[in-house]
Amino acid sequence: MIKVGIIGGTGYTGVELLRLLAQHPQVKLKVITSRGEAGKPVADMFPSLRGRVGLKFSEPDDRLLAACDVVFSATPNGVAMQHARALLEAGVKLIDLAADFRLKDPAVWEKWYGMPHACTDLLGEAVYGLPEIHREKIKPARLIANPGCYPTAVQLGFLPLLEKGLVDPGFLIADCKSGVSGAGRKAEVHTLFSEASDNFKAYGVPGHRHWPEIRQGLDAVVGRPVGLTFVPHLTPMIRGMHVTLYARLTDPGVDVQKLYEQRYAGEAFVDVLPPKSHPDTRSVRAANTCRIAVHRPQDGDTVVILAVIDNLVKGAAGQAVQNMNLLFGLAETTGLTQLPVLP
Amino acid sequence: MIKVGIIGGTGYTGVELLRLLAQHPQVKLKVITSRGEAGKPVADMFPSLRGRVGLKFSEPDDRLLAACDVVFSATPNGVAMQHARALLEAGVKLIDLAADFRLKDPAVWEKWYGMPHACTDLLGEAVYGLPEIHREKIKPARLIANPGCYPTAVQLGFLPLLEKGLVDPGFLIADCKSGVSGAGRKAEVHTLFSEASDNFKAYGVPGHRHWPEIRQGLDAVVGRPVGLTFVPHLTPMIRGMHVTLYARLTDPGVDVQKLYEQRYAGEAFVDVLPPKSHPDTRSVRAANTCRIAVHRPQDGDTVVILAVIDNLVKGAAGQAVQNMNLLFGLAETTGLTQLPVLP
Amino acid sequence: MIKVGIIGGTGYTGVELLRLLAQHPQVKLKVITSRGEAGKPVADMFPSLRGRVGLKFSEPDDRLLAACDVVFSATPNGVAMQHARALLEAGVKLIDLAADFRLKDPAVWEKWYGMPHACTDLLGEAVYGLPEIHREKIKPARLIANPGCYPTAVQLGFLPLLEKGLVDPGFLIADCKSGVSGAGRKAEVHTLFSEASDNFKAYGVPGHRHWPEIRQGLDAVVGRPVGLTFVPHLTPMIRGMHVTLYARLTDPGVDVQKLYEQRYAGEAFVDVLPPKSHPDTRSVRAANTCRIAVHRPQDGDTVVILAVIDNLVKGAAGQAVQNMNLLFGLAETTGLTQLPVLP
Amino acid sequence: MIKVGIIGGTGYTGVELLRLLAQHPQVKLKVITSRGEAGKPVADMFPSLRGRVGLKFSEPDDRLLAACDVVFSATPNGVAMQHARALLEAGVKLIDLAADFRLKDPAVWEKWYGMPHACTDLLGEAVYGLPEIHREKIKPARLIANPGCYPTAVQLGFLPLLEKGLVDPGFLIADCKSGVSGAGRKAEVHTLFSEASDNFKAYGVPGHRHWPEIRQGLDAVVGRPVGLTFVPHLTPMIRGMHVTLYARLTDPGVDVQKLYEQRYAGEAFVDVLPPKSHPDTRSVRAANTCRIAVHRPQDGDTVVILAVIDNLVKGAAGQAVQNMNLLFGLAETTGLTQLPVLP
Repeated sequence: MIKVGIIGGTGYTGVELLRLLAQHPQVKLKVITSRGEAGKPVADMFPSLRGRVGLKFSEPDDRLLAACDVVFSATPNGVAMQHARALLEAGVKLIDLAADFRLKDPAVWEKWYGMPHACTDLLGEAVYGLPEIHREKIKPARLIANPGCYPTAVQLGFLPLLEKGLVDPGFLIADCKSGVSGAGRKAEVHTLFSEASDNFKAYGVPGHRHWPEIRQGLDAVVGRPVGLTFVPHLTPMIRGMHVTLYARLTDPGVDVQKLYEQRYAGEAFVDVLPPKSHPDTRSVRAANTCRIAVHRPQDGDTVVILAVIDNLVKGAAGQAVQNMNLLFGLAETTGLTQLPVLP
Repeated sequence: MIKVGIIGGTGYTGVELLRLLAQHPQVKLKVITSRGEAGKPVADMFPSLRGRVGLKFSEPDDRLLAACDVVFSATPNGVAMQHARALLEAGVKLIDLAADFRLKDPAVWEKWYGMPHACTDLLGEAVYGLPEIHREKIKPARLIANPGCYPTAVQLGFLPLLEKGLVDPGFLIADCKSGVSGAGRKAEVHTLFSEASDNFKAYGVPGHRHWPEIRQGLDAVVGRPVGLTFVPHLTPMIRGMHVTLYARLTDPGVDVQKLYEQRYAGEAFVDVLPPKSHPDTRSVRAANTCRIAVHRPQDGDTVVILAVIDNLVKGAAGQAVQNMNLLFGLAETTGLTQLPVLP
Repeated sequence: MIKVGIIGGTGYTGVELLRLLAQHPQVKLKVITSRGEAGKPVADMFPSLRGRVGLKFSEPDDRLLAACDVVFSATPNGVAMQHARALLEAGVKLIDLAADFRLKDPAVWEKWYGMPHACTDLLGEAVYGLPEIHREKIKPARLIANPGCYPTAVQLGFLPLLEKGLVDPGFLIADCKSGVSGAGRKAEVHTLFSEASDNFKAYGVPGHRHWPEIRQGLDAVVGRPVGLTFVPHLTPMIRGMHVTLYARLTDPGVDVQKLYEQRYAGEAFVDVLPPKSHPDTRSVRAANTCRIAVHRPQDGDTVVILAVIDNLVKGAAGQAVQNMNLLFGLAETTGLTQLPVLP
Repeated sequence: MIKVGIIGGTGYTGVELLRLLAQHPQVKLKVITSRGEAGKPVADMFPSLRGRVGLKFSEPDDRLLAACDVVFSATPNGVAMQHARALLEAGVKLIDLAADFRLKDPAVWEKWYGMPHACTDLLGEAVYGLPEIHREKIKPARLIANPGCYPTAVQLGFLPLLEKGLVDPGFLIADCKSGVSGAGRKAEVHTLFSEASDNFKAYGVPGHRHWPEIRQGLDAVVGRPVGLTFVPHLTPMIRGMHVTLYARLTDPGVDVQKLYEQRYAGEAFVDVLPPKSHPDTRSVRAANTCRIAVHRPQDGDTVVILAVIDNLVKGAAGQAVQNMNLLFGLAETTGLTQLPVLP
C-alpha cells in the first residue's frame, strides 16, 4: 500500500483527491493537513466522506508528511514550494496540484504569480504531469507539476495537429468554458450562486495565468513560440470544462479524424468521438476522461476541436492520481475506473 | 457471475442501473432491451458509457431475458407486469423499478394507475424491496417491487418513530422536494430546462401516486390507517431528494436522536447524523446512502425529521442493486461503495 | 418628486431598490451610501444600471440623508437603528429593510440578533410594513419596519385562516424554501455556486430569526401565542420563495378557497389562484406579487396553503416601495407594475 | 393606440412579446392565435400575466388579424410566409420573428430550412430588422424579418471592424453561447432540465441555420463573401447569449475601443463598455440591450470582441418591438425601458 499525505485538503481539489484516494485499492491515507481546520475530522467538513474517511486534519508538519511515500499538495499557489525540498530530501515524492512547478522560467512564474519562487533549482527537475505527453519522464520523477485544468484540455486538444505541423501555429484560438468549481472553494462574491448562476461571462481576457502554461507546452511541441489567443469563460455548472479550439490547416488534405484516433489510440483516458460528434461535459462528469471531437465546418480550412474534461478530475485530482500510478508502477487506470455520473 | 438483463434501458433509472452494474464485480450484463432503440449501441445513446458497456439495445424478447439470472425492469408503469409471469416461470428473478407490484390491493392500484392489473395473483408474492424493513423477506423472493423514491425516503424517515408508537399517527406531514430527474427522461414541457430551472413549485397536492404507496407502508408499521399529508415539490437540481417530515410526539420524554441511531446502527446505507445537523442532497449524490437528521425545534412536541437520498440511487437503481445483492446472497454493499460526488 | 436616499446600496436588496426606484415615476434618487465603495459610480458595480443611474456611492452622512424625503436602509441588521433618530428628527421618513424595528420586545430582539437595541423607545412607534394587514397604520407613519421575506409569505399565507379562527393555532407548520439571494451578497462559502447549486438542504431548524417575527405577527392576529414550527430551506435558484403551510381545520365545513378570495379581493399584490393550482416562483419573478393556492388533500382536515413571492421584491425592495407609496399618498401600485419575467 | 396581433403566442418569444407589449404605452393587444390552445385564456397558460392580459387564444384567422395595424408572427419557421400576402394586402404590417424572410436567396433558404418558400416575391421587399444597420429602411417597410439571436449579437459585434475594413474578412470566428430558451418551448429530450443543466456542449458545428444569415449580413457589409466559422454552444442558463468573436487586425494601429464607442454613440440599445471589461449576460437580462467589450490580448493582432444580449429580448421580442416603434414613428425606446433584472 502506498502511504499518502495531502497538504491542504479543504478545497475542491482536496476533497476530490479524498474521494478518489479513498477508493484507490493501493492507497493508505495517512495524513491530511489544514492549518485552519487542524483537529477536525475530515468527514465533519465533507459529510460525503462519513464512514469512509476517518482521518482528522492535522497541522502542516513536514515530519509527519515525511513518513509518506507520496504527498499531494492541493493548496493555493506558493505553498508547495515551501515544502518541496524537505519532502524530496526525505525521499517523499511530491505531486503539486497548484502552479508552483509548472513554469520552467522563474521570471515568467514571478511575473504571472506575483511572488518570487522559493526553489528555482527544482524547476528543472520537476516533470510536467501530462501523461499523454510526458509519460516516460513522469515514471522515474520525484517532483510532478500537475497541469492546470485549461492547459490539460487545450494541450490535449491541439497536440495531434501541432505534433504533425498541420496548422498555422501563429494563429491558434482557445475559447474555453469552465464550471465554477474551477475557481476553488474560497468565499468570493463573483462565484456566489446568485452571481454565477443563470449567467455567463468571459474573464481574464487581457491575461490569465494559464496562458503562459499552455504556451510553454505548445511552444515545446512546435519548437518555437506559437501565437495563442486564450479566452476563459465562467459557465453556470459545478464541474466540467469545454474547450473549443480553432486553427487554420496548412494542409487541407489531411484526415484530421484519423490523425486524432491514431494519436490517442493507446490512451486510456482520451476518447476520440466519431465524426460530427459534440461531446458534452456531463459525459465525463466525475471521471478521469477527456473526450474529443474534430470538425471542419463546410470542409473549409479552419479546423474546430471540441474537448471536454471534468476540471476536478482529469483537470486536477484524477490526473494527479494518474501521475501517482505512474510514479509507483501501477496500471495507469488503477483507482480511476469510476464511470461518469449522467445525468 | 450473475447474468443480468434490463428491460427498458433508455430512461434515467436505466442508465443509472447501467452505471452501477457495469462496475459491479459479480455482474455480467447480458441483455438490455428497448423497443425504440433496438440495434443501437447503448454507448451511442449514453456516451458516458463509451468503452465500458459494449451491449446494443435489443427488442424486448422474453426468451432472451429468460437466459438471465435476474432481470431489472426500468420501464414505465404497466410493462413489467406483462413480462413477470414468463420470467418467473423461466426461473428468472425480477426486480421491477416501476410501480406494478408495489401496491397489494389491485383496486387501489387500478385507481391510481388508471389501468387494470395484468397479474393480480402475483401481487401477494411480490416483496416490497425496502431492505431496511423487509430484508429477510427479500432474500428468498422471486419478485421484488422496488420502492418509489419518495416512499423510500419518507418511510425511512418516519420508521423509527412509528415502530415505537411515539407520535400521533393521525397527523403526519411529509413535505418532499425532488430533483427533476425524478420525472424521467420523457420529453415534456414542464421539465424543460427553461421551465424547471430557477423555479420551484409544488405539484400533485390533490393526490400523487406515491401517497397510497407510502400509506400502505406506514399503515403496516402502525397497524392501522395513518393520517398522512404528502406534498411533493419540484426542485431545480438534477438528482437528489430531501424530505422534511413533521409529527407530534405523544411522549415528550423520548430521546429521538438515540432512537434513530439505534434503529439504523446496523444499516450500511442509512446514516444518522449528529444532533443539529442539516443533511444536504449532494452529500449522497450518486451514492446509495440515506442520511437522516432529527430535530425538536424549541424542544417542543413537534419532531422534524430531515432525510436525503439520491432519487436515482437509493431511490431507484441503487436500491434495486441492493435488492439483487440480497437475492443472490452477496454482501449487501457489493458494487455500491462509490463515494458521493461533492461538489 | 419624492427625494430618496438609500443607506447601504451594495447588497441585493439595495440593487433591487435601485432597479425599482430608477423606474418609479415619482422618485428622484438623491443619495446612496456605502462606506466601502464611496466615490464609485453605482453603475460600475452594477453594470445593469449603466446609463440609467448616474449616482456615485457616498459615505454614510446623516446630513446628506436629511435632505431626502424618505430614506431606505438596506444594510445589515443593527445599522438603521444608528441613523433612525437623526433622520426622524430631521423630518425624514425611514423605511428599514433589515430587522432593527421588526420586533416589539427589545429582549426578544437582543436574544435573536445578539446585540443591544440602540433606540428601544422607537420600537413602539415603528409600524410593521405589511400593507395587507397594517395599511392604515402605515400611511401616517414616520418609521417603517419592512418585513422579512419568510414572514411576508408565511403571514399572507396563514392570515385568512387565523383571522377567522378556522384552524388549530397550536400546530401550525411552515415549510419554507428560499432562493439563494435571500442570503445576501456577502462572500460566504455555503452560498458559493459550487456549494448551493444542484443541492438542497434545510437550515436553521433549531432556530431562525424569522421565527419570532412570524410568531409576533400570528400571535397578534390570533390574540394568543401560536404553536409554529418553521423550517427554512435553501433552494438552488436565485430569486423566489415558496412556502408550504399546513394547519388543521377546526371547522371542516369551511370553504377555504372562497375565504382566501374574499380576504384578498381588494389587494393589488395578492393573487389567489383557482382551486387545484400550484403557483411556481417564476410566476412572480421580479414582480411585487404574492400568489396563493389553497388545498385540502383527500378532503381531509389538513389544509395546505402554497404561497410564492420574489424574496427580493414582495419580500424586500418591492414591499418597501409599496410602503413608500402609502407614506406619500400615491397609488399603491405606482412604479410596481412590472410584469414577472418568465421564463 | 396601435392595434396588435400575435400569431403563435405559446412559445417563449410569444410570451416575451406579451410581457413587453402589455407594458407598452401605445399598444392595444387585439388578437393572439394558437391552433392548439384556441379558447384558453392566455393567463391560464402563463400565470405571470394574470390580471394583466385578459385575451384568450383564438384560431389563426387572417380576417381577425387583418383588423390589426401590425402582426407579430412568433411561430415556427414556415408559418409566417403563409399569412404574409393576405396581411400585407389588408394593409397590415408584419414582423416575422422566425426565419421566413431573413434570407434573400430562396435557394439558400430552401437548403437550410428544408422546404420550398411560399412567397419568394416578398423576399426582396422584406427588410432585415436590425435597426443599428437598417434603421432607415425599416421605417417605411411593410414586412420586417426580425433577426435571429445569434445573428443579432454576432453582427453587432463584428460590424464596426468590418465597416472600416480593419480585419481580415477571410478568417472570422464566432464562438457563441446561448441560454436554453433559445431552443424554444418544444418538448424535446435534449433541452430537458436533467439533460441541459450542469452541462455544456457545442452543437451544430457542421452547419447551423444562423450561419448563412450571419454570412449574408457580413457579406453585405464587406462587399464580398467572408470566411466565417460559427460554433454555437448550449449553456445552462435560461436567458442570455454571449458571443466571443475573433478576428485578425490588418491595421495594428487602430484604436478599436474608440472605433466601437463612436460607431454606437447614438444607439440607445448598444452599450460599449470601458476597456478591459467583461460583460455578463445577466447585465442585460430581460432588457433590450447589447453590451460590448473589445480586447486585444497582449496587444497582439488578434482582436477579441465580447457581446451579450438577452436572446429573448434584443435577440427576439424586444428587437421586434423596437422595429414596431420604428414602423409607427414612435421613439425607438418606447416600452423598452425596463431595467435588467440582476441578480
